[in-house]
Amino acid sequence: MFCWLSRLYRGFSTPTGRITHLIQSSLSRTLVLTSQRRIPEFSSFVARTNTCGELRSSHIGQEVTLCGWIQYRRQNIFLVLRDFHGLVQVVIPQEEKMPTGEIEIKVKTAELLNSCKKLPFEIKDFVKKTEALRLQYRYLDLRSFQMQYNLRLRSQMVMKMREYLCNLHGFVDIETPTLFKRTPGGAKEFVIPSREPGKFYCLPQSPQQFKQLLMVGGLDRYFQVARCYRDEGSRPDRQPEFTQIDIEMSFVDQTGIRSLIEGLLQYSWPSDKDPVVVPFPSLTFAEALANYGTDKPDTRFGMKIIDISDLFRNTEVGFLQDALSKPQGAVKAIRVPEGTKYLKRKDIDSIRKFAADHFNQEVLPVFPEASRNWNSPVAQSILEEQRSGLIRLMEIREDDVVLLTAGEHEKACSALGKLRLECADLLEARGLVLRDPALFSFLWVVDFPLFLPKEENPGGLESAHHPFTAPHPSDLQLLYTEPEKVRSQHYDLVLNGSEIGGGSIRIHDAELQRYVLATLLKEDVNLLSHLLQALDFGAPPHGGIALGLDRLICLVTGAPSIRDVIAFPKSFRGHDLMSNAPDSLPPEELKPYHIQVSWPADSEAEKSSLNQPSLPES
Amino acid sequence: MFCWLSRLYRGFSTPTGRITHLIQSSLSRTLVLTSQRRIPEFSSFVARTNTCGELRSSHIGQEVTLCGWIQYRRQNIFLVLRDFHGLVQVVIPQEEKMPTGEIEIKVKTAELLNSCKKLPFEIKDFVKKTEALRLQYRYLDLRSFQMQYNLRLRSQMVMKMREYLCNLHGFVDIETPTLFKRTPGGAKEFVIPSREPGKFYCLPQSPQQFKQLLMVGGLDRYFQVARCYRDEGSRPDRQPEFTQIDIEMSFVDQTGIRSLIEGLLQYSWPSDKDPVVVPFPSLTFAEALANYGTDKPDTRFGMKIIDISDLFRNTEVGFLQDALSKPQGAVKAIRVPEGTKYLKRKDIDSIRKFAADHFNQEVLPVFPEASRNWNSPVAQSILEEQRSGLIRLMEIREDDVVLLTAGEHEKACSALGKLRLECADLLEARGLVLRDPALFSFLWVVDFPLFLPKEENPGGLESAHHPFTAPHPSDLQLLYTEPEKVRSQHYDLVLNGSEIGGGSIRIHDAELQRYVLATLLKEDVNLLSHLLQALDFGAPPHGGIALGLDRLICLVTGAPSIRDVIAFPKSFRGHDLMSNAPDSLPPEELKPYHIQVSWPADSEAEKSSLNQPSLPES
Repeated sequence: MFCWLSRLYRGFSTPTGRITHLIQSSLSRTLVLTSQRRIPEFSSFVARTNTCGELRSSHIGQEVTLCGWIQYRRQNIFLVLRDFHGLVQVVIPQEEKMPTGEIEIKVKTAELLNSCKKLPFEIKDFVKKTEALRLQYRYLDLRSFQMQYNLRLRSQMVMKMREYLCNLHGFVDIETPTLFKRTPGGAKEFVIPSREPGKFYCLPQSPQQFKQLLMVGGLDRYFQVARCYRDEGSRPDRQPEFTQIDIEMSFVDQTGIRSLIEGLLQYSWPSDKDPVVVPFPSLTFAEALANYGTDKPDTRFGMKIIDISDLFRNTEVGFLQDALSKPQGAVKAIRVPEGTKYLKRKDIDSIRKFAADHFNQEVLPVFPEASRNWNSPVAQSILEEQRSGLIRLMEIREDDVVLLTAGEHEKACSALGKLRLECADLLEARGLVLRDPALFSFLWVVDFPLFLPKEENPGGLESAHHPFTAPHPSDLQLLYTEPEKVRSQHYDLVLNGSEIGGGSIRIHDAELQRYVLATLLKEDVNLLSHLLQALDFGAPPHGGIALGLDRLICLVTGAPSIRDVIAFPKSFRGHDLMSNAPDSLPPEELKPYHIQVSWPADSEAEKSSLNQPSLPES
Repeated sequence: MFCWLSRLYRGFSTPTGRITHLIQSSLSRTLVLTSQRRIPEFSSFVARTNTCGELRSSHIGQEVTLCGWIQYRRQNIFLVLRDFHGLVQVVIPQEEKMPTGEIEIKVKTAELLNSCKKLPFEIKDFVKKTEALRLQYRYLDLRSFQMQYNLRLRSQMVMKMREYLCNLHGFVDIETPTLFKRTPGGAKEFVIPSREPGKFYCLPQSPQQFKQLLMVGGLDRYFQVARCYRDEGSRPDRQPEFTQIDIEMSFVDQTGIRSLIEGLLQYSWPSDKDPVVVPFPSLTFAEALANYGTDKPDTRFGMKIIDISDLFRNTEVGFLQDALSKPQGAVKAIRVPEGTKYLKRKDIDSIRKFAADHFNQEVLPVFPEASRNWNSPVAQSILEEQRSGLIRLMEIREDDVVLLTAGEHEKACSALGKLRLECADLLEARGLVLRDPALFSFLWVVDFPLFLPKEENPGGLESAHHPFTAPHPSDLQLLYTEPEKVRSQHYDLVLNGSEIGGGSIRIHDAELQRYVLATLLKEDVNLLSHLLQALDFGAPPHGGIALGLDRLICLVTGAPSIRDVIAFPKSFRGHDLMSNAPDSLPPEELKPYHIQVSWPADSEAEKSSLNQPSLPES
């Protein structure tokens, strides 16, 4: 062990500026107070008696031993010692003096435990640094208040979730393998060569199959804080490895899963935030689309999409007539509160351009009550009767702007849904508070379609979520007649407009599962023969859910990116900027795995230098 | 959700023998008792009110809803329903009858939830099945009492560990990446191709670097239940992925880590086992070798190695003379209690052959007090004075056998250490109880050498554990003069003769770490530049430990293999026999990763069928 010597002055004689030095100080006083033992005990098993941040006037007179980094020092008389818990002022006795502040530490002995080179950036949250620099020196960035807060809150919240699941509700924490095999449609799975030529493991995107097999195995309340992997190439705010709270139960229905999750979030919610109110409201997928134009509505604010088709049945405006004459055609609008006050003409223009570019939708700004108006030939042909109808139906107030569009229901809603969020951002950037920053608005979205038209072949079907999702019991017969109309027993959990979880009741009938996989989805059932066989052996009814932990913690802490709630994240290109992963390997290290690199045609230099055969990528 | 209909008889009409059917029964009676709410609540969020196993006479009169599998049925009148918690007898009312047993369930309604094909084996622990069959149908094997017990105990023990670390001692649970880069000497790391040509991630063998970087980052009490990976090819009772309780602390010494771990095991120990007694005894590496011939002594029984060199200083026996005349030469012996009673002549012969084959050591059986004796020309030349010395020194009793060997200290001890375990197994196989099956005997082993001679080049040095291990403070100066003599601050935790954990105080001084890596170990420091740089920026003194969770749970549950404490283990060849991982992949799925398979020369058929270029393995 290291020795606790009195080497204080060696520490201070090092000629550095704002550099942190690691010291230990052991200190004296006159009055000893007993303080109640705290839970948890941060100073057990080590030589320190207290953390820097916990000292208060109740400690006056106690002899304490502290360990930390020097944050500031002045004239070798005062210094501020820092640890994860806070800062404390330390006085090196020169003469008796007592500066301001509740307490200070009088040094008896101190030891310099390590020196410190000039840091690439100061450990102060207000010092701006690029994210690349932060990731390169992640071990220094972790010293910031914000990163310490985020990671400690994450740990505490996960611990509370475990208590709720294990201790209160009898769930079993079971680790499932990450060296698995390719799943059907698993194109985003990392591959791992094995020592058998041509045989590969894959890193699974979730423990989906394993958790269902655990239900067949009678482990009827499973959970895992599961590491999952998804190779999506370069995507902003995605990580190649991520973590989900993975849950599965037997003999359960949707209501049961929803109560479980509501209780879980309520129990684990940080005490410094407003408590979670349960039950969470829920919308069907159809309602979410109609009201918010998305399956993950941000319900912290209004500005819902209103169907105003009935007002325009007799309109003479051409494109409205057109839209209403088609099947699923509708006129839709959102109300932008105080839009005439906060939005500039060029904002409206860019909003209209956005809708035209991304949704091929014409959007009209209408100013029903405004004194000022902007030229809009079509808007001017809206009749007085329609204007007053709009005011009544949409509860228009002075200065509000209405954004109106027409077209096929889903397309019109999607466009307005996106504009709703864009407008909210714009209004907030201009100073209107639409979304309470302390508000956490949870929402269940249910009754999703079970299938979607296949992207590359719209005649075929693909699973809207995954092929193990059970159909809605009311739609069971449709499965054999009009499968595209079947609703599923899938449910999504949405928080402030982000999807933070999703799950479903699963198919537990082997015949039904075979029918879905082979007949409807045209999948190769051989890849899933173990799962189908397992369902044959008395699989119980079961269902589950997975919560995206990184995203959830990101929302709870208000972090700008999931990289701020992960200790060592990858860059958006999937690089570890600190250690330089992924990295090159000498060819002989690939030999045991029977693979070689296929160098792309344009990297001749690399190829020849490594003596690899040339194989152009097709 | 599924409906709770009264379809009992459909369930029973299926003409199967011992096949399990899944049913739900909802049952009535006359007297309602209130029972105290249990913690944890196994029946929250689901339609059942109780588990099968928890019903007792205190429940008489309650209406309960149960879910489970049919274990037996008799004449459609009685059936036994099973869940993870136990069995309960259910009576389908024909007329009023009351068989023996504390309670039974009278069926009101029942629903068959799923049917079940003929199982490949019965779900009864006494039914023997091969391990291959168990692994192929793992989801059925998991229904066994033993697997349910093992996995549930594992979950509970890990939960208690988390409570101890997080809630009692302020540790922070931090997830570290598994997509990392090759570490020096990481020849056993799986490689993962990335989408950048020639660039690979590696799956780390432990979070060692990350946990040290967390200490530099001020997260001064870290732990993680960490998934680790090691590609060792085919090794019995090893898994390519395994789990460790990974811990690191700042400002700590060996004593602190040891107290932490003793407290951790005491706190998390299952209540149905004898409590753990702390502190654990400790031995230096030198003592462990001298007394037990191994660095992981099984201290549940005696039979220690005794140095009897002094008795034989004047011996005329040639090979003893020889041994004693050499440096480090010694005569060593173990006492086999009641050896003449339990060991047969052929046992002794095979023990001697084993020592000769594996250690090139001659071993003599000596029977100091025995009436019977076996011919042993050398044993007969042991003098009466030596015989009485042996009896005194080794506390020999009638029927004991002494196994005696001579040679270089370490070699003689290693041979006798192995024979000690062999003899214990033999004696126990013959009925002598040497090791109390309820005893858990923990031991710390400390003061290991820091370096060992390099295996492929005995002039060079390699780390006995890893290059970040700090030298023993008393031996610091030897590092620059006789590094091979330096002891380390490494410590191992041993339980019943198995190593279940190991750790060390780390080097926190960048210069010392550079000296060890570059000068002593001749490693390429560029691969570790991020770690060396981190030490330069005020790294605190720190140390840690990792416990092998699979091995620990295996010992606690008494399971014959770590495969019995893992839900979905790989076979000893690294295969998942259930899903058939690892598996082949079509070449186009390898293209995004810029790799191709190098087929070995002897698999021409596979090669040509897949149109791959031939590349013989060297």
